[in-house]
Amino acid sequence: MCVKLVIMLILALLARQQKLGGSLQGVSGLLSPVNFLDHTQHKGLSVAVFGVLFCKLVKLVMAPNPLPFIKDIQNREYWLILALFYYPALYYPLLACGTFHNKVGYVLGSLLSWTHFGVLVWQKVDCPKTPQIYIYYALLSSLPQIACLAFLSFQYPLLLFKGLKGTEKNNSSEDLESSYYRDYLKKILKKKKLSKASSSKPKMSEIISHTLKSYIYIPDEVFRFPLKIAISLVVEIIALYQIALLMVTGLVPTLQKARSGVDEDITFLLAGFNIILSQDRKEVVKIVVYYMWCIEVCYVSAVTLSCLVNLVMFMRSMVLHRSNLRGLYRGETYNVYNYQRNIRPSRPALVCWTGYTSYQAAFICLGTIIQTLVFFICLVFAVFLVIIPIFYGKNLVLFHFIGRMWPFWLLLFLAVLIQHLMSRFWFIQKEAGTRDLANRGSLFLLTYLLFPTNVLVGVLLSIWRLVITALFNIIHLGRMDISLLNRSVEAFDPGYRCYAHYLKIEVSQSHPVMKAFCGLLLQSQRQDQSSGQEARDAEEGIHLVSQDKKRSKVSSAKLARGHWHLLYTLVNNPSLVGSRKHFQRQSSESFINGTLKHCSKGSSKKVSGTTEAREGSGRAQTKD
Amino acid sequence: MCVKLVIMLILALLARQQKLGGSLQGVSGLLSPVNFLDHTQHKGLSVAVFGVLFCKLVKLVMAPNPLPFIKDIQNREYWLILALFYYPALYYPLLACGTFHNKVGYVLGSLLSWTHFGVLVWQKVDCPKTPQIYIYYALLSSLPQIACLAFLSFQYPLLLFKGLKGTEKNNSSEDLESSYYRDYLKKILKKKKLSKASSSKPKMSEIISHTLKSYIYIPDEVFRFPLKIAISLVVEIIALYQIALLMVTGLVPTLQKARSGVDEDITFLLAGFNIILSQDRKEVVKIVVYYMWCIEVCYVSAVTLSCLVNLVMFMRSMVLHRSNLRGLYRGETYNVYNYQRNIRPSRPALVCWTGYTSYQAAFICLGTIIQTLVFFICLVFAVFLVIIPIFYGKNLVLFHFIGRMWPFWLLLFLAVLIQHLMSRFWFIQKEAGTRDLANRGSLFLLTYLLFPTNVLVGVLLSIWRLVITALFNIIHLGRMDISLLNRSVEAFDPGYRCYAHYLKIEVSQSHPVMKAFCGLLLQSQRQDQSSGQEARDAEEGIHLVSQDKKRSKVSSAKLARGHWHLLYTLVNNPSLVGSRKHFQRQSSESFINGTLKHCSKGSSKKVSGTTEAREGSGRAQTKD
Repeated sequence: MCVKLVIMLILALLARQQKLGGSLQGVSGLLSPVNFLDHTQHKGLSVAVFGVLFCKLVKLVMAPNPLPFIKDIQNREYWLILALFYYPALYYPLLACGTFHNKVGYVLGSLLSWTHFGVLVWQKVDCPKTPQIYIYYALLSSLPQIACLAFLSFQYPLLLFKGLKGTEKNNSSEDLESSYYRDYLKKILKKKKLSKASSSKPKMSEIISHTLKSYIYIPDEVFRFPLKIAISLVVEIIALYQIALLMVTGLVPTLQKARSGVDEDITFLLAGFNIILSQDRKEVVKIVVYYMWCIEVCYVSAVTLSCLVNLVMFMRSMVLHRSNLRGLYRGETYNVYNYQRNIRPSRPALVCWTGYTSYQAAFICLGTIIQTLVFFICLVFAVFLVIIPIFYGKNLVLFHFIGRMWPFWLLLFLAVLIQHLMSRFWFIQKEAGTRDLANRGSLFLLTYLLFPTNVLVGVLLSIWRLVITALFNIIHLGRMDISLLNRSVEAFDPGYRCYAHYLKIEVSQSHPVMKAFCGLLLQSQRQDQSSGQEARDAEEGIHLVSQDKKRSKVSSAKLARGHWHLLYTLVNNPSLVGSRKHFQRQSSESFINGTLKHCSKGSSKKVSGTTEAREGSGRAQTKD
Repeated sequence: MCVKLVIMLILALLARQQKLGGSLQGVSGLLSPVNFLDHTQHKGLSVAVFGVLFCKLVKLVMAPNPLPFIKDIQNREYWLILALFYYPALYYPLLACGTFHNKVGYVLGSLLSWTHFGVLVWQKVDCPKTPQIYIYYALLSSLPQIACLAFLSFQYPLLLFKGLKGTEKNNSSEDLESSYYRDYLKKILKKKKLSKASSSKPKMSEIISHTLKSYIYIPDEVFRFPLKIAISLVVEIIALYQIALLMVTGLVPTLQKARSGVDEDITFLLAGFNIILSQDRKEVVKIVVYYMWCIEVCYVSAVTLSCLVNLVMFMRSMVLHRSNLRGLYRGETYNVYNYQRNIRPSRPALVCWTGYTSYQAAFICLGTIIQTLVFFICLVFAVFLVIIPIFYGKNLVLFHFIGRMWPFWLLLFLAVLIQHLMSRFWFIQKEAGTRDLANRGSLFLLTYLLFPTNVLVGVLLSIWRLVITALFNIIHLGRMDISLLNRSVEAFDPGYRCYAHYLKIEVSQSHPVMKAFCGLLLQSQRQDQSSGQEARDAEEGIHLVSQDKKRSKVSSAKLARGHWHLLYTLVNNPSLVGSRKHFQRQSSESFINGTLKHCSKGSSKKVSGTTEAREGSGRAQTKD
C-alpha cells in the first residue's frame, strides 16, 4: 500500500517537473496556486484541495506513523513536523494544475486527481477495517477526502471539456473582465425603495421573523463570497464532521461493550461504595444497564445537538460575513468594528489573513468538543434529575427541594409582580402625550421596603446571568465573526481580532467597485487602441488632422467623465479613499473624512436621484 | 437580650406614632424616606440605613431563627419571609427622622440611633462568642452594622447642631436651590481646550497610563453621584466584606483543625488509595500537613485576590458610572447604549431602577464566590504543578510534557515569526505614502503551505480565547455596568439590562441642567414677585402706567431670554427633548432629531464660542 503512495509521489513530482519544463511562462502562475482575493475564481478546485489537505492533517495527528513510508515510531514528533510540510507539497500539483488555464494543465490535473482518487478508494476497499479507535473509523474519516477527490476528478475533465469547446476564457485579466463586478455595481446603483423609518415599535412577530431570517442564508445573485471564506466554510464542515466522528466512534463502542459486559458482580462493586439499588441482583443489573443506556443516549444527543448548533452557526456566519463585507464596501467601518478604522493592509492584518482559514478550523474543533461536553453534562442532569424521576417517581430530590421552597418562589413572584403593577398603574402616568413619574414618595418607600426581597430576586438574576453568559459563549465559541468579550474590549478576543483583520485585507484588496472601475478603465483603453488602429487603417492623409482633433476632444471628455466616475465612486465607497496613491494623510484626511461624512449621509438619497443619469452615461460609454 | 430588642421595637413604634401626631404636615415627607433622585441630599443617612439593613439581611439568611422574639424553628420559611419585611419597617424610623429637616426629627433620630447602637454594642459585648460557623463570626459579621449605626449616632446630633446654628436650610425646594446644579452648568459651559485630534497613533506608554487612569476614581468637584449609586457602592462593599468573611471563617478554621489532627493513621488511609508518599510514616504526616498548609494558603490567597479584584472593579465602575451619566446628560445615548434609545421612564425601567441596589449586592455576592472558586483552582494548579515541582524537583509532569513537545513549540513559533517577517518585509510595500500588497503569488503560496501548521497555531489561539473569555467574564461577573455578552445581544444580559434601564430613569428624572433651569425659573419668579411688591409699595398713582409698561417690557425681554435659554439648553442636552410636554412624537421627532444631530456635532465648537456671551447674560440675569 505504501509503495503505491510512493509511486504516486514520484508521479506527482514528475508531473510537476514536466509542467515547469513545458510551460515556462506559467512559472509565476504556478507560484500563485489560486488568487485568493478574487471573487470570480473557480472556487471548487481550491476548496476541494484544502478539504483534502485538512482531512490528511486530521489523519496525521491521529496516526501512529505520520508518513506512510517511514516506520520509525521513536522520533514521531520530527516526522510529524516533516509531514506538516510534505502533504501540502504532495497536493500542491492538484491546485497548481488549475492555475494554468490551459488544456495541458487540465489534462494533468485530471490524471493527477484520478490517480489520487483511485489510490485512496483502492486503499479503502482493500482494507476497510483498522484496529485504531473503531474498526471503521479510518474508512469513515476519509469519506470527505474521497468526496473532495471525486469532485476534483469530475471538475478537471469538465474544465478540459469547456476549454476544448472554447467557452473557457483563457485570459490573465479574466477576473477584471468578469461581469460580476459590473452587476454588483449596477445593483448598488439601482433605485432603492425608501423604506419609511416607521417610528412605531416593531411587533413581536416581526422581531421573531427577522431574527429567524438572520439565521438562514439565502444566496444573493450579485454577491459572491471571497475564496477564503468559501474555503473556510468547507474546511469548517469537514472539521465538524471529523470531530463528531471522533467523539462518537471514540466513546460509543466502548460504552456499548461495557454495557453488554455488565453482570451480577456489579452488585458487589456498588455495595463497596454503599450504593444498593435493589435487593434482587438481576434487577440491579437491569437498572445499571438502563442507566448506562441513558448515558449513551445523552452522549449521542449531545454530539448531535452540538453539530446542529454549529451548522446553524455556520449559516448565521455566512449571513454576517455578507453583511459585514457589504457594510465595509459601503464604508460603514463604525458599524462593523464599532470604532473608526483604517481599511489598509498592515503586518498583523496580513498575518491574520494568512491564518484565517486554519484558525477557523481549529476554533470549530475546540468549540465542538467543549459544546458537547457542556451539553452532555446538562443532558445527564436533566435526565437523572428531571425525566427519570418524573417517569419512575423516585429520586425526586430536585422537586422536593423546589417544593419545600414554594413560599419563597411565591414571595419573589409577588414582589416582582407588585413592582410591575405599581409601576404600570401608579408610578408612571401619561400626561399630554409624555410619560412621567408620579407619586414619588410611594416609589421611594417601595424601593426601601422591598430592598431585602429584591436582593433575593437579584440572586436568581445573577444565576440567570451566569447561565446565559456561559451558554452564549459556549455556543459561539467556534465563531470568529463575533467577539465573546464586552464591546469595549472586543479586540482582546483573538478570534474576533483575527476576523476583523481578515476583513480589512479582504476589503482593501478586493473591493468589487474598485475592480469594476479597473475593468472599465482597461476596457476603454483597449477600445481606444482598437478605434485608433481602425481609424489609422481606414483613413490617412487629409483626415488625419481633424481625426486628431476629434480624438483629443473625445479624450478630454473621457477624462472629465473619468474624474466624475472617480469622484462618484469615492463618495459612495469611502473605504477606497485610503487605498489611493498620493494620499496625503495629514492634510487631506480630515478634509476628506469631513466631506465623506457629509456625503455618506446624503448618498442614499443622492443615489436614487442620479442613478438613471449615471446608468445612462454608463450605457453611452459602453456603446461609443 | 431578646427582651431588649422588643423594647427597642416598642420605642421605635412610639417614636413613629409621636412623629405622625406631632407634625401632620410631615406625613407626605415621612412617606418619601429620602429623595433618591436628588444629587444634593445628605447621602450619609440613607447610605448608613441601607448598610444596616443589608447586614441584617445577611444575618437573617444565616441565622436558624430569623426573628429574635420567636423560637419556632419548624416554620422557619414563613418567619423568614415575615422578617424580610419586619426589618425594613424596624429601621424605617431611622431613615424617616432625617426627612423632616427639623429639630424634632433630628432629636428623635439621635435618640433612635443611640438606642440601636447601644443595644447592638451591648449585645456583642455581652456574648461575643457564638457556636455558629466560627466563634467570632457573629461579632465580625456585625462590624459594618455597628459602623453604620455609629455613623448615624454621630450624624444626627451633628445635623441637630447645624439646625440650631441655622446653617441647615429648612426648605422643601432645597434641592433646586442648591448651588451644585449651577456649578455643574457653569462647568459644562466653560471654554474647553480644543484637544487636537492628533492623527498620529498614541504611544504604548500613553495607552497604558490612560488604561490605568480609567481604573482610578478621582472625585470631581462639580459631579456628584445619584444617591442610589452611593448606596449601591456602600452595600457592595459590605456585601464583599460579608461574603469574604463567610468564606474565610467557614473553611479556614476547619482546615486548621484538620491539619492539626493529622496523625500517622493517614498513611493507611492513603495506602488504601494506593498513594505512598514516603516509607517513613512521620515524613508522610509532614508531607500531608505541608500540602494541607499549601491548600490553606491558596484558599486565603484566592479570597484576598478576589476581594482586591472586586475593589478595583468598584473603582472602575465609579469611573464608568460618571462617564455614562455625563454622556447621557450630553445626549450621547449611542455611545452609552450602542443604539439610539429614548430616555423616558417606562415600566420595566422603573422596576429595574427600584431593584438596582439590591441586584448589585446579589451580583457581587455570587461574583465573589465564583471568582474565589476559580482563583482557588488556578492557584492550586499553579502551586502543585509549577511552584512545588520547581522548589523540590519532583512531580515535574507539566515540565516534562512541555519539554517533550519542544519541537512543536519551536515549529509554531517559527511559523508565526516567518509570517510576520514576510509580511513586514516582503508582502507589504510602501509606495507613494500608501501601503499596498506586493508579491501576491508568494503570499498565496505561503498561505497554502502553512495551512496545516496554522491549524496547530489556531488550536493554541482557541485555547487562549477560551481562557481569556472565561477569565474576563468571571472577573466582571459582579459588575452590572458592562455586559458580558457580545455587542449585538448586550441586552440579554440581565445585569446590564437592569443597569441600562436604571440609567434611563436616573437621567430622565435628575438631569442637572434641567434642575438648574428649574432653579433659575423659580428664582426669577420669586424676584419678579418681590420686585413687583416693592414697586407697588413704593410708588402709586402717576407712575403706575409707566411701571406697567416697563414691567411688560421686562417680561417680554425675559420671555425672549427664556426662549433663548430653553433653545440653548435643549441643543446642548438633547436628552431633555423627550421629556418636554406637548412633545408631538410623529411630526417633530424626526425634525428635532435631525436638527440635534446637526447641532450636537457643532455644539462642542459652538459652546466655546458662545460661552462668554452666555455667561455674561447669566450674570446679568442674576444681578437684575
